[in-house]
Amino acid sequence: MHFVAANPAFEARVRASFARQAAMRFIGARLADVAPGRCTIELPVHPDLSQQHGFVHGGIVGMIADSAGGYSAFSLMPDDASVLTVEFKINLLAPARGDLLIAAGAVVKPGRTLSIARADVFARENGRETLIATLQQTLMVMQGVADEPT
Amino acid sequence: MHFVAANPAFEARVRASFARQAAMRFIGARLADVAPGRCTIELPVHPDLSQQHGFVHGGIVGMIADSAGGYSAFSLMPDDASVLTVEFKINLLAPARGDLLIAAGAVVKPGRTLSIARADVFARENGRETLIATLQQTLMVMQGVADEPT
Amino acid sequence: MHFVAANPAFEARVRASFARQAAMRFIGARLADVAPGRCTIELPVHPDLSQQHGFVHGGIVGMIADSAGGYSAFSLMPDDASVLTVEFKINLLAPARGDLLIAAGAVVKPGRTLSIARADVFARENGRETLIATLQQTLMVMQGVADEPT
Amino acid sequence: MHFVAANPAFEARVRASFARQAAMRFIGARLADVAPGRCTIELPVHPDLSQQHGFVHGGIVGMIADSAGGYSAFSLMPDDASVLTVEFKINLLAPARGDLLIAAGAVVKPGRTLSIARADVFARENGRETLIATLQQTLMVMQGVADEPT
Repeated sequence: MHFVAANPAFEARVRASFARQAAMRFIGARLADVAPGRCTIELPVHPDLSQQHGFVHGGIVGMIADSAGGYSAFSLMPDDASVLTVEFKINLLAPARGDLLIAAGAVVKPGRTLSIARADVFARENGRETLIATLQQTLMVMQGVADEPT
Repeated sequence: MHFVAANPAFEARVRASFARQAAMRFIGARLADVAPGRCTIELPVHPDLSQQHGFVHGGIVGMIADSAGGYSAFSLMPDDASVLTVEFKINLLAPARGDLLIAAGAVVKPGRTLSIARADVFARENGRETLIATLQQTLMVMQGVADEPT
Repeated sequence: MHFVAANPAFEARVRASFARQAAMRFIGARLADVAPGRCTIELPVHPDLSQQHGFVHGGIVGMIADSAGGYSAFSLMPDDASVLTVEFKINLLAPARGDLLIAAGAVVKPGRTLSIARADVFARENGRETLIATLQQTLMVMQGVADEPT
Repeated sequence: MHFVAANPAFEARVRASFARQAAMRFIGARLADVAPGRCTIELPVHPDLSQQHGFVHGGIVGMIADSAGGYSAFSLMPDDASVLTVEFKINLLAPARGDLLIAAGAVVKPGRTLSIARADVFARENGRETLIATLQQTLMVMQGVADEPT
């Protein structure tokens, strides 16, 4: 699906908001691509992120998928709106291992009050990418709420 | 619901597995209580965990809820089994702010192949606890799979 | 959790709305109890509702759980609002067999725009009730929208 | 994604199983297309299926989406296996109105024990199709379990 961004400065807005997410910086995630209704987040794998079997923790996979879906939705929102995750559901399909995780978010249906998005997460290992998780998500458009902390 | 643990050493087993989750240590989470089919994880709030509005990132809330539900299920599993999250769904109900997050997991239905669990997450602010998230989750019992990395 | 209904005529309102759900009548479901933030729907099991193994179809189980959660939320809404399911997630825990299914809904968090509810579904077989499904759901409060078809 | 069916008689097997789902016949659903890892179910809209606003009940939409995803997964399973829905999550995106609902299922990841599928539901109104719901689902492969009632 192809969308048109209501705000021509959508990319700068998404990048500024992502930069305010201390949690993304803390785990080492970076914002790769931003397009209207789409957003890709990359996370280099490091040992601090692992669960008991040595793979990346499913909750960390959920974090980048949640942010990828959320910023996909945010890219289509007007200038005076902010985004909030209402809920998400994620299936973990394969162990999160390799050197890089890539969460690719995409809006399914933008709305005035709620937006629905998806995100697929891939793990890159030895130059090969495997789908390791898929997320379905409901986001709220908060009209008139600044994206900065107050 | 009340459950009986198949493995009398269930608490030591849960604590050893949790200690192997580097990701929990990385975000500062600690395992509080363990009982048959129940598990509580606590996370002191700190600025590194925040999203763009200054609250704890929903993905971080998902991480501790996922682990709390998963270890609730693991507490009922036999000695030679390991646990894996198949999927989870989380509703974020209120901003995650305050000084401490508490994720209380509980098994809904234990099974031979799959277990179903829930977790509620509370935020403690000025001594008062508020329900901020609720998770429903499917876990896989991996028979004959060691809980340690191989 | 205990809630107070904003509308004193909440029960009559829920019953009138349920009576307008042709789909509930079609499958043979009836509204049992209504309380503030709670609602129980019963469905006598009959062969027309079965899937390929002879149990009640999971989608039928989802239908009564969805309505039970939805009317739990509706019971707390003001007189000029209507309810809409945004999304639901259901785990099917055991085969739906016996003579009666009972879906017990309960609000987790009522809100001005969104409400979160749960529903547990039990199957009664030989006088014994078994938990067969559990649902978690997001509902929208549609302010100023009549509950009747326009 | 393109899949190869393990059982060359996959289509006959899916059609025989669907024919045993009394619930699908009861609501008037028919199996349209079957391909390896894909399945489409159609449901002519009629007043018996409606909710209080006169649209098709969300639970009915969930029923056909659940079956479309489930039979997509079943099409890839070996001859001696049966399928069971573990859980599904569905977002209802727009009112289900028009003359025909079309649920298009597709496998995301087939597995030996669990398969993950999706389904999109479209409503056809005045010759135009609108996406009205999207489902994400976990299914269990029951090895050595006949698909017929015992």
